[in-house]
Amino acid sequence: MEQEVIATLARTFELHGFGNVETRAVEPMDQLLRKGDTSKEVYVLRRLQEEDGGKDRGIGLHFDLTVPFARYVLENAGKLEFPFRRYQIQKVWRGERPQEGRFREFTQADIDIVGRDTLPFHHDVEVARVMLEALSRLDFLPGFRLQVNNRKLIQGFYAGLGLDEHGIDEVMRLVDKLDKLDPAKVRELLLTEAGVTEEQADKALALATIRTTDDSFVEQVRALGVSSELLDEGLDELATLVRACAPLVTERTRIEADLSIARGLDYYTGTVFETRLDGFASLGSICSGGRYDALASDGRTTYPGVGISLGLSRLLVPLVQRGVLTADRSVPSVVVVAVTAEETRAEADAVATALRARGIPCEVAPSAAKFGKQIRHAERRGIPYVWFPDAEGAGEVKDIRSGNQVAADPATWQPPTQDLRPQVVVTTTSTSTSEGESS
Amino acid sequence: MEQEVIATLARTFELHGFGNVETRAVEPMDQLLRKGDTSKEVYVLRRLQEEDGGKDRGIGLHFDLTVPFARYVLENAGKLEFPFRRYQIQKVWRGERPQEGRFREFTQADIDIVGRDTLPFHHDVEVARVMLEALSRLDFLPGFRLQVNNRKLIQGFYAGLGLDEHGIDEVMRLVDKLDKLDPAKVRELLLTEAGVTEEQADKALALATIRTTDDSFVEQVRALGVSSELLDEGLDELATLVRACAPLVTERTRIEADLSIARGLDYYTGTVFETRLDGFASLGSICSGGRYDALASDGRTTYPGVGISLGLSRLLVPLVQRGVLTADRSVPSVVVVAVTAEETRAEADAVATALRARGIPCEVAPSAAKFGKQIRHAERRGIPYVWFPDAEGAGEVKDIRSGNQVAADPATWQPPTQDLRPQVVVTTTSTSTSEGESS
Repeated sequence: MEQEVIATLARTFELHGFGNVETRAVEPMDQLLRKGDTSKEVYVLRRLQEEDGGKDRGIGLHFDLTVPFARYVLENAGKLEFPFRRYQIQKVWRGERPQEGRFREFTQADIDIVGRDTLPFHHDVEVARVMLEALSRLDFLPGFRLQVNNRKLIQGFYAGLGLDEHGIDEVMRLVDKLDKLDPAKVRELLLTEAGVTEEQADKALALATIRTTDDSFVEQVRALGVSSELLDEGLDELATLVRACAPLVTERTRIEADLSIARGLDYYTGTVFETRLDGFASLGSICSGGRYDALASDGRTTYPGVGISLGLSRLLVPLVQRGVLTADRSVPSVVVVAVTAEETRAEADAVATALRARGIPCEVAPSAAKFGKQIRHAERRGIPYVWFPDAEGAGEVKDIRSGNQVAADPATWQPPTQDLRPQVVVTTTSTSTSEGESS
Repeated sequence: MEQEVIATLARTFELHGFGNVETRAVEPMDQLLRKGDTSKEVYVLRRLQEEDGGKDRGIGLHFDLTVPFARYVLENAGKLEFPFRRYQIQKVWRGERPQEGRFREFTQADIDIVGRDTLPFHHDVEVARVMLEALSRLDFLPGFRLQVNNRKLIQGFYAGLGLDEHGIDEVMRLVDKLDKLDPAKVRELLLTEAGVTEEQADKALALATIRTTDDSFVEQVRALGVSSELLDEGLDELATLVRACAPLVTERTRIEADLSIARGLDYYTGTVFETRLDGFASLGSICSGGRYDALASDGRTTYPGVGISLGLSRLLVPLVQRGVLTADRSVPSVVVVAVTAEETRAEADAVATALRARGIPCEVAPSAAKFGKQIRHAERRGIPYVWFPDAEGAGEVKDIRSGNQVAADPATWQPPTQDLRPQVVVTTTSTSTSEGESS
């Protein structure tokens, strides 16, 4: 199931010119800890037979794909062509005690566009559109909404309220608590902890309540009577983004300007993204990201970036666990070729070879058991057809769902397209046997 | 590059009814150390903030895909249908000091067929044929030969020489050194260490020199005048295998019965496989495996298996490093859609959307620079076409390799098939920018 989803995502990303990058899972600890505050989540590696203090103590498993990608950009800057688009779909690890909804090992799918020195704003629009398109192609997903905001808008608004840099950070930190605390409590904290005036607190809270599916948020912000150059820039960028995504909107695929979104501690400097899945509020954001003015820097050159990261396991595991998603068969085979007697296994092999040459996955029965048993062998795996070969290299093929049996030639017989590959089925009882990422 | 190879392998495995299994990279140490002698290679994990003696000390990264698969089979035995075919393509890690030709992190592609209690011999033939087919589809590979032997043949031969179980193991261990020591030295060790007679030593060495591309090895073994029931069984199995693989043999894809192959310390009990790449002798075997009478066992039930493991990084990294393999462009895009002015970027976007809807990867130029600069942008990335949109949603498309420029409609224009995806090119200068698995 995850393989199918990854293939769909990769196909979409490549249609938009994003190249695949893979980085090693093991990174030096000094790279991994560059951001500081995530240090608790890192798995440190040591070789089993290593004496204490061995050279290898300084390595660990990556916990996201942004940190390794920043290292990759710096290491390969001389060879890369900018703007550089990459997608990266890999496992990441977090050293947490496993508990429900938390995975030690999970798959992320990231897209980023990185520039050298500058990166035009239209790339913010681009990553939003690409991820909307990718998600909308996952047709088993419930509806979802991409929530967008802009740090310039928030910071410009707070600056327009008369707050200084420290005040802006404090208010942003406290307003970000609105998803856990009620507004009255946040208002109280704004007054006591951030030391802002009642008017400043009320306007900051009013801003955070604005939510529109088109660019009408601009008027609502203007109505609050606050202005600054940075605010204008943020409003303009966000309005451009929402308008540019509008052609992709359907009943399932929605976009929303949500002026409460700030992506707290992360170092975003403009556009920010979060994504909510309908009916799975408890999952939080399944797909987040934004604009960094400095994704990477080597001191002389700065590499601004904009990207979104999709938490694939976070998305799929709950859907599979709740039995929403399953596959209609447990193996790729469309056909079991029956074996009449061990001495004629070669006849069955020849039929299978002819079918495979035409792209039809199949397997040959493991033993020359009674045909009833060979049919049950197919049935238990959900394989829809059994082929009974004759001595002339052809035979008859039975659709074991309908019982229909017809004469057929392996050089021409074709199953219906929907039978060719296992289908992802939306259901309410799970029969999946695949291993979840939780451990 | 590796992604393309993985897709080709997966497609072949699925055509043969092998289902994809993925297991977590992190396994309990008691699972990983079950085999004992590989303990030096394991990376042990600990959480960075963990106090010594924490619960998580007992986990590590898997170093192959066989050990995790054996665990998987036991854990899911109740839900699996046997014989169970799976392929598994994942990273594995070995805690070695990195050095040339050794990778801390590398990709393996394994296929196995597992039975419950019994597994007919024809599945040995099946895995050999599937892997031969998969390798032969990697058309950038030099020629290769699958070397096959059978432990029953070796053990049966030594038993026929009059050796007991301990003697058999000793002789097998010493004969296995023939790839490092010369025959005279091995003969001396057989006499002094294994304590066999001169005749026994000579016959054991004679057996190990037999190498045939058809089943004529049977006669050569018979000519040595040794017999035992187990030897007969081994000769019969190996002859069946070589004959059944003959239809797949081409100049590039070869099979060879090599009676020196024993796969030393591994717990194989019948068929054994190794694979050599022409011109890359120093790589050793790139693809190895065999038959286990007990791939897994829970005390009551035994699960015999037969499988082959392809060392994908071991195969690809040297080819890329020696510049044998490269890609003809660094991005998936076939077309750069030029932007005449920032105000008309939407026209370029519309052309790109129309092309993508028909499966043609493309990107829109990052800025409305002079067309010469936009063409160079494509050129530097190896992108073959630049599209100049007009106000009517069509425009002209230029093949920048030939300079040819023609009027075109994005709803119908189609590039030649070989331009649709980056091609793997066999060359002598490497321009790849992808990150190797070595670290």
